[in-house]
Amino acid sequence: MEITAWRLMDDLAALDRIGRTETGLRRVAWTPAFAKGLDWLAGRFAEGGLRVERDAAANLWGWWDVGSGPALVLGSHIDTVPDGGTYDGAFGVLAALEAVRTLREAGDAPAFPLAVVAWADEEGARFGAGFFGSRAFVGEPITETFVALAGEEARAALREGGVDTDRLGDVAAGRGRVGAYLEAHIEQGPRLEAAGVPLGVVSGIYGIARTEWTLTGAPRHAGTTPFSVRRDAGIGAARATLVAREIALAAGENAVGTVGTMRWEPNAANIVPGRAVFFAEFRALDGAVLAEMEAAFSERMMAICAEERLTAESRTTMHTPPTPLHPALIEALVAGCGRVGVEPLHIPSGAGHDAGILAPLLPAAMLFVPSRDGISHAPDEYTAPADLATGANALLETARVLMERGLPRS
Amino acid sequence: MEITAWRLMDDLAALDRIGRTETGLRRVAWTPAFAKGLDWLAGRFAEGGLRVERDAAANLWGWWDVGSGPALVLGSHIDTVPDGGTYDGAFGVLAALEAVRTLREAGDAPAFPLAVVAWADEEGARFGAGFFGSRAFVGEPITETFVALAGEEARAALREGGVDTDRLGDVAAGRGRVGAYLEAHIEQGPRLEAAGVPLGVVSGIYGIARTEWTLTGAPRHAGTTPFSVRRDAGIGAARATLVAREIALAAGENAVGTVGTMRWEPNAANIVPGRAVFFAEFRALDGAVLAEMEAAFSERMMAICAEERLTAESRTTMHTPPTPLHPALIEALVAGCGRVGVEPLHIPSGAGHDAGILAPLLPAAMLFVPSRDGISHAPDEYTAPADLATGANALLETARVLMERGLPRS
Repeated sequence: MEITAWRLMDDLAALDRIGRTETGLRRVAWTPAFAKGLDWLAGRFAEGGLRVERDAAANLWGWWDVGSGPALVLGSHIDTVPDGGTYDGAFGVLAALEAVRTLREAGDAPAFPLAVVAWADEEGARFGAGFFGSRAFVGEPITETFVALAGEEARAALREGGVDTDRLGDVAAGRGRVGAYLEAHIEQGPRLEAAGVPLGVVSGIYGIARTEWTLTGAPRHAGTTPFSVRRDAGIGAARATLVAREIALAAGENAVGTVGTMRWEPNAANIVPGRAVFFAEFRALDGAVLAEMEAAFSERMMAICAEERLTAESRTTMHTPPTPLHPALIEALVAGCGRVGVEPLHIPSGAGHDAGILAPLLPAAMLFVPSRDGISHAPDEYTAPADLATGANALLETARVLMERGLPRS
Repeated sequence: MEITAWRLMDDLAALDRIGRTETGLRRVAWTPAFAKGLDWLAGRFAEGGLRVERDAAANLWGWWDVGSGPALVLGSHIDTVPDGGTYDGAFGVLAALEAVRTLREAGDAPAFPLAVVAWADEEGARFGAGFFGSRAFVGEPITETFVALAGEEARAALREGGVDTDRLGDVAAGRGRVGAYLEAHIEQGPRLEAAGVPLGVVSGIYGIARTEWTLTGAPRHAGTTPFSVRRDAGIGAARATLVAREIALAAGENAVGTVGTMRWEPNAANIVPGRAVFFAEFRALDGAVLAEMEAAFSERMMAICAEERLTAESRTTMHTPPTPLHPALIEALVAGCGRVGVEPLHIPSGAGHDAGILAPLLPAAMLFVPSRDGISHAPDEYTAPADLATGANALLETARVLMERGLPRS
């Protein structure tokens, strides 16, 4: 059994026209392009013989109502970042649709229902918080988060986007219908390409610790102030930037550390910086490693501030533990990959995904296809059509493995 | 002979009320507060028996028309930065006025004319280029610089501020009337305070080399991009910040180096910085040292960019050579300090001054009084009244030394 590659590519091309601008794809959640994308997808679900369901969180489901008990659900998201690319999210949804269509056409009815899902607002590009749909599904008070970030504008945008905030409890109550979740996605990193392997099975999702640091020194004339009395917050921030990398490098392969933002005051060429504000972010597959990196960074910052005569304040704005994925589903994915002739790489996901939101509550796992140059969230995001087809076929075969083995019990 | 300290303090207090706001002094050039300050000063010149002259560059002169030949001119500026302090510029002008008034009252007529001058727009706070008045005086095409920076808005503001751009040649032609220039100023640095010495004679003015660097790497997902393939422009900028300090420290006492600005793109906590833009500024008393620092920094930047897989562009936006001050005037200042019982520190000026603009064309020198904590360009800029009086008395005594010795020939 094989998916129909040209149909998958046609779907990708059709969806890619929705929200396309000269600077990139702008199918940002809660915009007209997003609504248009969902309408188009609902049409494709219906044409594929699936029962269309829009839940109160604006998640779009396509159900193949066969068998009984909890369903095997395949999916991802169709919203993008501003000026994003073709494949992030869209590939996972359309590969899922193609896999389910192929199974239906083969007439090989599973013992459990199958569904395709497009989770609403994975990227969080408009209001700064992501995973709206999957967070509503697991029962998080995500509307409150949105409203806290963006006030009534967020509430109105959600309403306009088809969210019924009074009925989000129904979305969470629907959890019992889902027995297992599989998500195909582009890697968004360079490991598969570097290894020359078209498929990756995700071993787990990195935990993230993100802290905003404010270093305060004294703004002084850069010409008249000797080094002996300077309290240069820019120097402190520069040392922090290098230390974040040093600590993450020492933590081994499945960890990263990044200072991605930097703001100086007064930010004048002739004034010693009096204040520097930056985010230091650490990610790791292992929670203990993550905690060690955070502690090591704080300790080093204290020493740097003492040496440079600075004061420091820090505020942790994001702290998510690492998410293990389901062992039986990982095994099924490996078997599915094997059936399309690929021995997959086991790689962690450094990015967050809807699968990571669901995984603490129900069996979930992920399949990666390569990203050229590791690029994502950009117009030049690219995965070769052959790799897309291999990914969709592996997803199809994994569903067939689960049809043979049954869904995991928990 | 001694200045009248209370009169000097009264003048400082009166001028300090012009442009005073809740956040600091805002007597920025080409604003109503600046015009009001000049009007007030013209009144004080007249009350002190000086002939008031406003030249076409909006410099304000108070002439004591005695003797013959080129004059001894004492002065500074009365414009401030936004939210500046009481003493930067204003002290030098009012100490000059107090010294000349004291001499006149003593009836001890010199063989040459004496004048007090307030140069227009030393700070350059409104349009980004400073020293308007003194640059016009030495014949620089400063209007063109202003218009290039701020267009017709600058031209209109200059006109409104009393500048006659068609007659700036007359200002430069007036150079012959000035035989020597002395400027008293706050140190804007901590050296006098640290040494416990109330007076400093400026040995020379630092040259400045200011270069904007743009480092380009690749913006990539901070969670999914391993260090082995990152091209992190923020890391490059952090290393540059530390290297600038390292190079200046190695260059010895009379040199500084500062990275004072920093801007990253895309500047997001979860994206490896793809671009970093910053100014690296070096200052030194010795031109060879300045050139060595610049060369060393460029060389180190090339190595850093190679190691971090970045590309670099640089653009030098300011390059002024160090300015030696006049040896005979320096000797006169030392003698003047001696007459008020102070052995002055010889210190370089890390900041630019009108005296530095004039020095290449005519004999010029500078006297410093202490700045508490080295603070300037801020509301908490402070010099103790006793030090202000000592500075004004030393200026008076230096004028008397020159009355005895005669002005230097060139």
